Amino acid sequence: MVLAQQEQSTEFDEHRRAQVREVLLRKHHHQNEKTTHLLPVVCSFADVSKRQSDLHLLYKPAQTVTPCPSPTAAEAKGGVNRESRAVDLSKRCGLCFWGNCFLKKIPNGAEASNVLVGELDFLHQPIVAFVRLSPAVLLSGMTEVPIPTRFLFVLLGPEGKAHQYHEIGRSMATIMTDEVFRDVAYKAENGADLVAGIDEFLDQVTVLPPGEWDPSIRIEPPKNVPSQEKRKMPGALDDSASHSTLEKHSDPELQRTGRLFGGLTLDVKRKAPWFWSDFRDGLSLQCLASFLFLYCACMSPVITFGGLLGEATNGHISAMESLLGASMAGVVYSLFAGQPLTILGSTGPVLVFEKILYKFCKEYTLSYLSLRACVGLWTAFLCIVLVATDASCLVCYVTRFTEEAFASLICIIFIYEALEKLSHLRDTYPVHVHSKLDFLTSYYCKCEAPTHPSNETLRFWESNEINVSGIAWENLTVTECRYLHGEFQGPACGRDGPYTPDVFFWCCILFFATFALSSFLKKFKTSRYFPTRVRSAVSDFAVFLTIVIMVLLDFVVGIPSPKLHVPHAFKPTRDDRGWFINPIGPNPWWTVLAALIPALLCTILIFMDQQISAVIVNRKEHKLKKGCGYHLDLFMVAVMLGVCSVMGLPWFVAATVLSITHVNSLKVESDCSAPGEQPKFLGIREQRVTGLMIFVLMGCSVFFTSVLKFIPMPVLYGVFLYMGVSSLRGIQFFDRLKLFLMPAKHQPDFIYLRHVPLRKVHFFTVIQLICLVLLWTIKVSRAAIIFPMMVLALVFVRKVMDFCFSKRELSFLDDLMPESKKKKLDDAKNEAKEEEVMLAGSVSLTLEERYNF
Amino acid sequence: MVLAQQEQSTEFDEHRRAQVREVLLRKHHHQNEKTTHLLPVVCSFADVSKRQSDLHLLYKPAQTVTPCPSPTAAEAKGGVNRESRAVDLSKRCGLCFWGNCFLKKIPNGAEASNVLVGELDFLHQPIVAFVRLSPAVLLSGMTEVPIPTRFLFVLLGPEGKAHQYHEIGRSMATIMTDEVFRDVAYKAENGADLVAGIDEFLDQVTVLPPGEWDPSIRIEPPKNVPSQEKRKMPGALDDSASHSTLEKHSDPELQRTGRLFGGLTLDVKRKAPWFWSDFRDGLSLQCLASFLFLYCACMSPVITFGGLLGEATNGHISAMESLLGASMAGVVYSLFAGQPLTILGSTGPVLVFEKILYKFCKEYTLSYLSLRACVGLWTAFLCIVLVATDASCLVCYVTRFTEEAFASLICIIFIYEALEKLSHLRDTYPVHVHSKLDFLTSYYCKCEAPTHPSNETLRFWESNEINVSGIAWENLTVTECRYLHGEFQGPACGRDGPYTPDVFFWCCILFFATFALSSFLKKFKTSRYFPTRVRSAVSDFAVFLTIVIMVLLDFVVGIPSPKLHVPHAFKPTRDDRGWFINPIGPNPWWTVLAALIPALLCTILIFMDQQISAVIVNRKEHKLKKGCGYHLDLFMVAVMLGVCSVMGLPWFVAATVLSITHVNSLKVESDCSAPGEQPKFLGIREQRVTGLMIFVLMGCSVFFTSVLKFIPMPVLYGVFLYMGVSSLRGIQFFDRLKLFLMPAKHQPDFIYLRHVPLRKVHFFTVIQLICLVLLWTIKVSRAAIIFPMMVLALVFVRKVMDFCFSKRELSFLDDLMPESKKKKLDDAKNEAKEEEVMLAGSVSLTLEERYNF
Repeated sequence: MVLAQQEQSTEFDEHRRAQVREVLLRKHHHQNEKTTHLLPVVCSFADVSKRQSDLHLLYKPAQTVTPCPSPTAAEAKGGVNRESRAVDLSKRCGLCFWGNCFLKKIPNGAEASNVLVGELDFLHQPIVAFVRLSPAVLLSGMTEVPIPTRFLFVLLGPEGKAHQYHEIGRSMATIMTDEVFRDVAYKAENGADLVAGIDEFLDQVTVLPPGEWDPSIRIEPPKNVPSQEKRKMPGALDDSASHSTLEKHSDPELQRTGRLFGGLTLDVKRKAPWFWSDFRDGLSLQCLASFLFLYCACMSPVITFGGLLGEATNGHISAMESLLGASMAGVVYSLFAGQPLTILGSTGPVLVFEKILYKFCKEYTLSYLSLRACVGLWTAFLCIVLVATDASCLVCYVTRFTEEAFASLICIIFIYEALEKLSHLRDTYPVHVHSKLDFLTSYYCKCEAPTHPSNETLRFWESNEINVSGIAWENLTVTECRYLHGEFQGPACGRDGPYTPDVFFWCCILFFATFALSSFLKKFKTSRYFPTRVRSAVSDFAVFLTIVIMVLLDFVVGIPSPKLHVPHAFKPTRDDRGWFINPIGPNPWWTVLAALIPALLCTILIFMDQQISAVIVNRKEHKLKKGCGYHLDLFMVAVMLGVCSVMGLPWFVAATVLSITHVNSLKVESDCSAPGEQPKFLGIREQRVTGLMIFVLMGCSVFFTSVLKFIPMPVLYGVFLYMGVSSLRGIQFFDRLKLFLMPAKHQPDFIYLRHVPLRKVHFFTVIQLICLVLLWTIKVSRAAIIFPMMVLALVFVRKVMDFCFSKRELSFLDDLMPESKKKKLDDAKNEAKEEEVMLAGSVSLTLEERYNF
Repeated sequence: MVLAQQEQSTEFDEHRRAQVREVLLRKHHHQNEKTTHLLPVVCSFADVSKRQSDLHLLYKPAQTVTPCPSPTAAEAKGGVNRESRAVDLSKRCGLCFWGNCFLKKIPNGAEASNVLVGELDFLHQPIVAFVRLSPAVLLSGMTEVPIPTRFLFVLLGPEGKAHQYHEIGRSMATIMTDEVFRDVAYKAENGADLVAGIDEFLDQVTVLPPGEWDPSIRIEPPKNVPSQEKRKMPGALDDSASHSTLEKHSDPELQRTGRLFGGLTLDVKRKAPWFWSDFRDGLSLQCLASFLFLYCACMSPVITFGGLLGEATNGHISAMESLLGASMAGVVYSLFAGQPLTILGSTGPVLVFEKILYKFCKEYTLSYLSLRACVGLWTAFLCIVLVATDASCLVCYVTRFTEEAFASLICIIFIYEALEKLSHLRDTYPVHVHSKLDFLTSYYCKCEAPTHPSNETLRFWESNEINVSGIAWENLTVTECRYLHGEFQGPACGRDGPYTPDVFFWCCILFFATFALSSFLKKFKTSRYFPTRVRSAVSDFAVFLTIVIMVLLDFVVGIPSPKLHVPHAFKPTRDDRGWFINPIGPNPWWTVLAALIPALLCTILIFMDQQISAVIVNRKEHKLKKGCGYHLDLFMVAVMLGVCSVMGLPWFVAATVLSITHVNSLKVESDCSAPGEQPKFLGIREQRVTGLMIFVLMGCSVFFTSVLKFIPMPVLYGVFLYMGVSSLRGIQFFDRLKLFLMPAKHQPDFIYLRHVPLRKVHFFTVIQLICLVLLWTIKVSRAAIIFPMMVLALVFVRKVMDFCFSKRELSFLDDLMPESKKKKLDDAKNEAKEEEVMLAGSVSLTLEERYNF
């Protein structure tokens, strides 16, 4: 048929036709095959010198919307993999690679398109044919994998221009990979349609001029190819840059229902269908990695916080209570909350609040635990009132501006605290800095009887009936000496006890090594070494691996570094309290009512901490599929707050950094096994298993103290530093801060830099920075208790910024603030108009940038 | 004239013509100007709605071969800088940036080409004109900088297609940046020539298909744009990939002259004209940085090596001699050598040789220094014989294979030794690892009289007339106790003295911090922060800055870490020797002749060490402009060897790692201030000043021991680690080793991977690895002395590889071995043919890769 068509247009005699027919019917040679490849001039089989090249192109039917591009498409582009080595691989892996495995990567219903080119010495004019077979036919020996061929492109021409034919073949192959042209090819009714399709394709092409580009450079394939849909709508403007940025805060979860508990009901309805899948989805190696990592990461703050609370409240609430409280609250929250990715933890403001409350109770000789139970119950009640009134809807006023300022602060505090804890080790383990090594023989630090015992000491001796003269002071250990109020004497004595050799520096090494190793292992995913599976496993288990390695290292070296100490027995720290606290107890009855006042403050505190963390977890960048549940989250927190109060346990709310770390550790990327395909961020592995396991195991920690006692504290501090630093990474505010130090030409290609003047970007950043500094000042000052209110103030700062920045600028730098509904309806038309102008503006801006020509 | 031309082809009446003329005569608006930019629809001045865009293109006359591309060319491409921000900058920097500074970046004799587009509501058909002015005219207000305009492109068309006109204007602007099309534009005699020029341009264009590329991605401009010369020769084949790799070892420096000292004479003649420039070129901040860094880096090995020699030779040659010898040899070498970039140092095999010689002398009770002088003088003589016979020409057999195996080994040894030295510190500063912190009060380590004094001790006491019973043992310091053969007793005592608190761990911290900080600061050059000048200064001074910071840190912390100890006084270490050694001395006369035998071995040792290091320094990647001088280098080494021998100082030859570090620290890159221009490696700052200063200062070190004694040794070890690791970076062998761990798709785009099958590359690497392991075994075994011979053996291994690999493969993986001259002449034709085939092969390979389409 091809020849018959040709006859009509060109004139060549029967003999030529027969010859061409013979050639067309010969077995083709793959361009990969060496013989034809290296010696194109010499090669001649039978009587015709012929070279054929075949590039397979796969048809992806229009209805398939799988993101995976057809593999040979990438291959044909030449920018991706080296053909010569691809051939190697195919030979080595044999059937598996090119055969079965390759076939797996081809979407269902794919059809092949074969390109055949060659030169024939007897031709004077080229013969070109584009054949569409109906139906598609399985041509054996043509394609490497058995898929039916739909299209055939044949080009035979006179000798001497083999290179040109080859290029034409390549071009045809490339054009067949184009979504739009494929459509055209399927629907074309005549040659003119095809030519129009080629024209359209050429119009859309990006061109690199020869004098400014080195064609031997290989360009990495893009992460995402923009949708080609707009090409199918003739005359459509290019609005790719702006269409996504003008989105509104329009989460249906945050619409006020107007009914009591309406939001909560909707949350439950929304989350219930996902409940079982929340457990099924947890069966993954990544979840194991995430759970092991976060278990280690959560243990330390819970216990440290417990210790601090114990100090502050004279042991009324201490490590054991903290462990039990966290475990209980965590388990219940993970099981029933709207967003189980949030991790509960203890936060600074709560600690400050407890301290103040304890101090107050002590001054007025009230029972601390009872009053606390009252406050807790009131707070729980108020929180439930907030749930009932759908108050969580206010969260929509928390834009990226507020959210990032808050998150940055929490991250900085995390980093600061990690470093501070490390430096505090120096107090516990003093270092003899200016020692003379030559006098090591005369260094010692002994215990002695105090030369001038203070009154307190004398009283202590008396009350404990200690026979001072009978003590062999110089034989006492450090603990005994301290207990008996002895004095340390000798050149190896620090201010407060003997100098501790090696421990502090060893801790420093552990701390920084933990940080460096975990960062390195985490980044290992994007390194070039080892297969993807190994890399992602190493990366997932990065922190856990680091902890294991460091524990082993610490064990091998044997320096007595401080270790994690977990309570051994399951009982309250003080013997004068049980697991149930009477809310009235010995206190007068009116305290129950008076507790409402601190409870109001506490409610704001809990609400802000909880909701902002939830907003950060529920960010749209995380591409969560199972929806969020702000109301349900707050409800669960409130319930557990009540339970904890009655049981005399500390209160727990969402912990920002731990939650971010949790989410980051559960990121899912597409496995990119097709050659040239880029991995894509698919979303978060949303499930309840990791959270549940973390807190179940935390509760059980009492039983395996023998293992946990090997974990050195500086390793955990290193993990904190890592968590703080890695949480900072996703925060745009820090990217913008960095811009201050960058000359314009080195600034990365952020979308907002394309559309907002640099000066405005800097202005925005400076405002945010000032807010952050103010927050920091409040947080570390004595007014820490009003910190949550100040976070609230950020929302108003953001509102004021509406006057300094245009809506368009804010849409790039921040999310837009929601308008009140009435105003929205009023301004509907105005806005539509305005957006149109904005679009036009951004189009004229982007047009120049769009064309790399 | 434009209108007159138009009239001939299109029909539009006088009125229209007048209108168009009016438009053409109006002042144009730059596309940068905001008013026309953001509101293209609304903007209207007078009666016509008109939009003009102007893209300046600079003509670079064909005779200018400066590598700098015209800056606006890059701008026009749009892939480089953001226009909106470029405008910002121009406004901020005012005249300087766009005015004077911009003008400076435009090559002399540049001419502008202005592109004007606009839409006119009364036109029905577009008017296009391409105007070449003769002569070029300075059109005021058109160009931002006052350069004459040669070309004008005018496009006016009917309303509604402004976007298309804009794109056409952009395309015209881009095409005018093309070297070849500019030629065409200058020489075109009619419109057809221009169209042909555009066609040629489009043929050469690289195309990115829309469905596989996101046009909003900005492509980094290439490091180098390939020469466009081949486009000017019609029908020329594309051989860009292979033309550079088939080069031969054809240094004129390495041609055998056949005359005595012929090579040396040529070296002197070649280098003499550069002599003064060698000093002028040294006046640069980079040289200061390099000299400060390398001074610190060289001091430590010279002193350490001196110390080792002192141990090995019982103080006959020690630190003071080493310092003096290095300084003298270095100064003379830097002043007169052929390649002053090479840094002299002491090498392992020399140390082994000296050790053996000393042992031999001790056994046969010969005078070590005298025999050594004889051996040294013989060696110097033999080396001069080698110079006379142009033996350095054999260096051309040292291909990349040998060179990299040798360099890798030296680097690995450097790294290994840095780590080993650190771990040796643990012997000097023992750590009490399993100490119980609670028993710190009972820890001490006192000196005691030995309970069972050995005979040796008794004899020592006797001979020094020590009254043992009169010693207050427990009051002795560590040194005194050791001197008096006391024993250390107590729970804080190690095997060999008291445990040293903190020092070892502090050393570890210093060591790794030095390595990390210097690597970080060095990499700072390629970071995005701060202006180029700051970054390159920080990067140049990286190691020196690190040393300064670390010294300060060490000083502040105050832990007594080991410091660099430099001899205080300028006198021989032992009092029984002077600065002149009699070559015969007390030895029998025949030893003078017998010394010839070890001298032969020593000659090979010196020759190999010296020449391979020289080859590495003279690598063609370094783009040295002042030529090399292997013969002169060897001559200077020989002369100083003789001098050092007579003065009883150690011998010095080229030190590989120090030389590589020196070269790396002097790399010059073009400052890339034109927007979008990439920095290019221009070459090495070839001069004699740094070398000279290093060694002059080294000689003077005796006088500023008070400063040097603050430098902690672990910091210097850290610098070694850094030098070793950074020297490894340039070695292809390591790149190939890494390939073993990489899945094929992640392998970087090395040229040899494009042309040689992976399996062959791996095979080549494995052979090299085996050689390296063998060399290592020999180097660390007792046979270290034959190590230089084994390096020689590598040359033969390489020769054998000619049978396993094709010439083409070797040309990509290695340099080709030189053929013997006669064979060359015989095979001239064969080879030519072969190369042609190879070319054809590589062309057919590269063609597919070349087109990113």
